[in-house]
Amino acid sequence: KPLTIGLIPADGIGREVIPAARQVLETLRSDVMPAKLNFVNLDAGFEYFQKHGVALPEETLAALKGDCDGALFGAVSSPSHKVAGYSSPIVGLRKQMDLYANVRPVISGAAATASGERRAIDMLIIRENTECLYIKEEELHEGPDGKYAIAKRRISEFASRRAGEMAFSMALQRDAMRQQLPASERTWTGRPKVTIVHKSNVLSVTDGLWRETVRSVYESNPEYKARVDVEEQLVDSMVYRMFREPEAFDVVVAPNMYGDIISDGAAALVGSLGLVPSANVGDNFVVGEPVHGSAPDIAGRNIANPIAAIRSAAMLLESTGYGSAALAIYRAVDKVLAEGQIKTPDLGGKATTTEVTEAVCKLL
Amino acid sequence: KPLTIGLIPADGIGREVIPAARQVLETLRSDVMPAKLNFVNLDAGFEYFQKHGVALPEETLAALKGDCDGALFGAVSSPSHKVAGYSSPIVGLRKQMDLYANVRPVISGAAATASGERRAIDMLIIRENTECLYIKEEELHEGPDGKYAIAKRRISEFASRRAGEMAFSMALQRDAMRQQLPASERTWTGRPKVTIVHKSNVLSVTDGLWRETVRSVYESNPEYKARVDVEEQLVDSMVYRMFREPEAFDVVVAPNMYGDIISDGAAALVGSLGLVPSANVGDNFVVGEPVHGSAPDIAGRNIANPIAAIRSAAMLLESTGYGSAALAIYRAVDKVLAEGQIKTPDLGGKATTTEVTEAVCKLL
Ligand SMILES: CC(C)[C@H](C(=O)O)[C@@H](O)C(=O)O
Ligand SMILES: CC(C)[C@H](C(=O)O)[C@@H](O)C(=O)O
Repeated sequence: KPLTIGLIPADGIGREVIPAARQVLETLRSDVMPAKLNFVNLDAGFEYFQKHGVALPEETLAALKGDCDGALFGAVSSPSHKVAGYSSPIVGLRKQMDLYANVRPVISGAAATASGERRAIDMLIIRENTECLYIKEEELHEGPDGKYAIAKRRISEFASRRAGEMAFSMALQRDAMRQQLPASERTWTGRPKVTIVHKSNVLSVTDGLWRETVRSVYESNPEYKARVDVEEQLVDSMVYRMFREPEAFDVVVAPNMYGDIISDGAAALVGSLGLVPSANVGDNFVVGEPVHGSAPDIAGRNIANPIAAIRSAAMLLESTGYGSAALAIYRAVDKVLAEGQIKTPDLGGKATTTEVTEAVCKLL
Repeated sequence: KPLTIGLIPADGIGREVIPAARQVLETLRSDVMPAKLNFVNLDAGFEYFQKHGVALPEETLAALKGDCDGALFGAVSSPSHKVAGYSSPIVGLRKQMDLYANVRPVISGAAATASGERRAIDMLIIRENTECLYIKEEELHEGPDGKYAIAKRRISEFASRRAGEMAFSMALQRDAMRQQLPASERTWTGRPKVTIVHKSNVLSVTDGLWRETVRSVYESNPEYKARVDVEEQLVDSMVYRMFREPEAFDVVVAPNMYGDIISDGAAALVGSLGLVPSANVGDNFVVGEPVHGSAPDIAGRNIANPIAAIRSAAMLLESTGYGSAALAIYRAVDKVLAEGQIKTPDLGGKATTTEVTEAVCKLL
């Protein structure tokens, strides 16, 4: 049975890194990737909005729901001023397809910390992906002192529980995978740990509900209680600690907006946003998406780092049941990075997007 | 005319670093500090709440408004679970005294970045201090899928304009101060710059209003337009860029919650939260406050870094018109740090709170 993947490059460097990821997928040998791959090109993005008045066309959603087994999303440009009727297509996609968790692995053999030491990082950020301030319920009012605006931030038991379940089950899954590695190759050597991020010292009701719900996922599951450690971090301290001792985190679970901010911070630690992939995960569908943005300043110059997109493609394969194919890609990417010869300018190199992509393909 | 300072140590290490700051203030020689200093000890905090059922007593507010010219606040502990009736006293204080901007200078001769290089940082974060999610209007609801909670995030033209004015005028003020330094000692050599932080690609109404209002402060003032550069950063990219190239920022202005997160991140860059002071500034009152928390894990052991509190005391003097006294303290602290012999464990040293405080006092 073929695997059909929707490709949504959207804006800026999305149009360079998504084709790069496709090229890698097409290079996979049939012993690791037994299914035939079909690709469907789909529209979305701010540029598309400027031409057609819609950022996430109905046809794209219909094709994803009808024909595709999963998708890859590139990046979306941010309007530099208020644009009537525009709404971020990636936020819309997550909501429409009920992709309730954004899974962001941040891995580095040796990253520099604030104190200049190099330390091993192997962190998995689970970002709740459907609510918080991203529900975009906002209103503008006129008051006695001028305009004011109110946005609603929604935190539900339902969404918090799903994110929490994902975090604890991933903690166990990561632990199982680590057990298969020789001890010398394990970055994390302790018991699996989940760090719950919140700001309940200020948001006692919304973040209070988040924290209690995620905790109750833990408390009500004997296996989690027996095998996983749990801790909490206020979001401001989290950013501080992440930068001071990134090796102290295993799985991190956060409401939508905090998760957005934390994952960019974590990407800085491992050298470049151009390295960090993500998967938007629902019960029936997955959309791979590099964590980086559309980078208009470097778009069209064939110098964008394709690795985040390539790794996102591997995450997509992993979650659609093609673990060996995913592993082959992860290994090829790691090897190119470890050799350190062929790298794009964000990593201090001079290679092009094409050269990095071909280096990865050559190892498959 | 004497200067009367309210002291609110509150919780944890607040009770160690506020007395340290007081000791430094009392050591100031009369040639730099001509006014007599009076101190008024005031209650607040989570521990106080546990005993008396109120976290920010009316008497404290009354004393601040009646007798004091300014105040120093220590730190407040966060309850580890939901506590009925408790509300953060520092958030309450900012609101009640209309301390609308939180000014956070993050300075370092040489700080390590994510890539391990050491670079000079001299950043001033202006955090809007009265609204955003900190209005704490939250409600819990029962829905078909279980509980959900809604928090309101408020952004007003009025508050955004005040924060923006503070940012641009501080940019000019910093520039004027830099012109007095020999060129070799200037960390920032370009034109003054203000970076506006927002997330208007998602929050187009609230953060849209923030961004447009701060921009309009700039556009409507010919002096700002002629002399200051302005740029924007999405909050996630801001955290990324701050870790990658902290030397690229001069003044940064952000809504309340983003400002909270960013300033902890910036503190990580300069070595320790224990170094970063702040001033909660209103039109008629200032409360100095170290950026760090109450650190229950090290409280009561005389090892907390007093420098953030000491610098906060200097900021208080600066804004009450005692610039020379402030400068004397800044210089003494810088010298102790530069010598690098006497430092608390957060900076890798073995000195006590008392020893660091005395080292500063000896230089005054
Ligand atoms: C483009 C933007 C809406 C998006 C987000 O905030 O979720 C991006 O920053 C991300 O992290 O995927
Ligand atoms: C203690 C807490 C309410 C406070 C805040 O979030 O403002 C603290 O983190 C700070 O930065 O002053």
